[in-house]
Amino acid sequence: MDENQIVRLLSARFGAKSPSLLKGIGDDAAVLHPRGAREYLVITTDMLLEDVDFRRSWMTPAQLGHKSLAVNLSDLAAMGAMPRFFTVSLALPQDVGIDWIAGFYRGIRALAIRQGAVLIGGDLSRSPAGIQSVITAIGETSKRRPVYRSGGRPGDFLYVTGVLGRAAAGLSLLWRGRIHGENAAERKALQSHRVPEPRCVVGTWLARSRFVGCMIDLSDGLSMDLPRLCAASGTGAEIWSDCLPVFSPARRWQSDPLTLALHGGEDFELLFAVPSRKAADFEKAYPPEFPPISRIGRLRRERGVFWSAGRATPLRPLIPAGFDHFRSDLTKQVPQNTRKKTGRGSPVGH
Amino acid sequence: MDENQIVRLLSARFGAKSPSLLKGIGDDAAVLHPRGAREYLVITTDMLLEDVDFRRSWMTPAQLGHKSLAVNLSDLAAMGAMPRFFTVSLALPQDVGIDWIAGFYRGIRALAIRQGAVLIGGDLSRSPAGIQSVITAIGETSKRRPVYRSGGRPGDFLYVTGVLGRAAAGLSLLWRGRIHGENAAERKALQSHRVPEPRCVVGTWLARSRFVGCMIDLSDGLSMDLPRLCAASGTGAEIWSDCLPVFSPARRWQSDPLTLALHGGEDFELLFAVPSRKAADFEKAYPPEFPPISRIGRLRRERGVFWSAGRATPLRPLIPAGFDHFRSDLTKQVPQNTRKKTGRGSPVGH
Repeated sequence: MDENQIVRLLSARFGAKSPSLLKGIGDDAAVLHPRGAREYLVITTDMLLEDVDFRRSWMTPAQLGHKSLAVNLSDLAAMGAMPRFFTVSLALPQDVGIDWIAGFYRGIRALAIRQGAVLIGGDLSRSPAGIQSVITAIGETSKRRPVYRSGGRPGDFLYVTGVLGRAAAGLSLLWRGRIHGENAAERKALQSHRVPEPRCVVGTWLARSRFVGCMIDLSDGLSMDLPRLCAASGTGAEIWSDCLPVFSPARRWQSDPLTLALHGGEDFELLFAVPSRKAADFEKAYPPEFPPISRIGRLRRERGVFWSAGRATPLRPLIPAGFDHFRSDLTKQVPQNTRKKTGRGSPVGH
Repeated sequence: MDENQIVRLLSARFGAKSPSLLKGIGDDAAVLHPRGAREYLVITTDMLLEDVDFRRSWMTPAQLGHKSLAVNLSDLAAMGAMPRFFTVSLALPQDVGIDWIAGFYRGIRALAIRQGAVLIGGDLSRSPAGIQSVITAIGETSKRRPVYRSGGRPGDFLYVTGVLGRAAAGLSLLWRGRIHGENAAERKALQSHRVPEPRCVVGTWLARSRFVGCMIDLSDGLSMDLPRLCAASGTGAEIWSDCLPVFSPARRWQSDPLTLALHGGEDFELLFAVPSRKAADFEKAYPPEFPPISRIGRLRRERGVFWSAGRATPLRPLIPAGFDHFRSDLTKQVPQNTRKKTGRGSPVGH
């Protein structure tokens, strides 16, 4: 049983409805409309666990603080919501001291200020093993226009922001013990892995623009997250690999940029779809000062997610090989560019 | 450095304000007023960690699910808010199977339905060690009347709902290996520890009634939580031990009911203050079908928290001996009725 299956199980059992709940389990975040409120609230929660999601020796406390908040703000971005508030639950082993805690909150604070989010509470506990950080973030829509995963239609073009596979390229360096970048490309890759910048301004702009039908953030990798977008929209998809914004320098450290772009997780870029008839207008309207976007494929009526080297070449199934937090952990993982070969992990409880 | 000190540090560093944030760090929960909304939203988060907050052998999965949600709903109750929504983040070791997960969510679901709370999302992860459950709950005020810790005034009478020390009496049974109750009293004590019922209906009624100036829930024990109420209200307090609703049957298993009532945690009863001139009206208005309340002391102008055997006997300082999650864990604890003697635990980072 993987995370997707458990989410489906919970959605089925917790079918309870509330008049102010616009979207519950199953998207990047939940959407509420408090009675009378001018805007919708968007709520998400994500945890980072030591030796599952990170290694202490790979990141400074401030970087971990930043990333703990960033992964949540990225979910808000994917809904088209601006960050407003967040809570932090932190469990710490006894060997973690006050300097570490101060550094962790310094990293959180810097990102929070930049993104306009305010810490409103939390919980603190001793941990019997490993650092655990759980953040819940609350955002606000703009003009009551959230973007769901479910609004995609066959024929829509697929776009991504930024570069894909760069965070995974950084992870592959860490796996090789190269925790300090030796040149600009390595440092950029490591930075993408350690301190991803959530695309909140872009996400909100996309939601307000009305060009975008569906959106998701790329946390587990294109091959894991695109099927989720498709399942919610009731479509299939095809990806044109020659259009992917891959991170070419990864080749220098024997990582395949295309594999990283298709399967590498934690880029926290936005993946979204725009109806083809609006595509030209959209591309013209997209602000030039924003991170670049790439048109990487399209949604299809036929189910299944495929990829090809280009528009004229044969389609091949895109087999999910991203990071399922529920089935794998860092201590068992191999570098991202070979992870595809390690199989699907073991089911829970067996 | 204990949890109170860290909370103060965070409050100082995260002084950021937002026009819709009515109450941030430092109360049982945060209070938001989304622009235009008819009511305020109240947000809290709490985690339960295996071998810090519970032992797996002591509780069924359903009981742990119930308690994970209950501790959060109790915080909402203490603010006078009704539960509305919640998220669940769950980290599970590989030996935890689907039956366990189903049981955990069954326990959550039963309480959620009874209290009117709807699951809106969450996160799921493998845990390298131990079960970790983190819930964030969102409630709604009634008539925009939250109750803070800070509204107490010298002379106000202090009240508690229900019975104090019963959950700790249950814990003391568990510590002695008596995980199955042998009679009604033992079963009641174990039940209080395992499946506390949050006082949401009472809390909301108290908030609406306008009788109550300040309120807190008793999670860490009277000797820990009363000083927090006093610090926020800028008062001291005295407790009359002959008025405490102690759990007398604990004596049968060599636990002192008064010590449990003063220092035992996790009763999740409400502690609140009512101005003395309103006390008679309040006691008359309090619905008889609600859990019983006891007038247990009063707030004082002089700082410090004291207790006496009765109104005419000398005051003695009430030394905090409750459960500080950040300084102690189950694996080091002794039964609650002797915990006072074990000192204050070791500071973090030493």
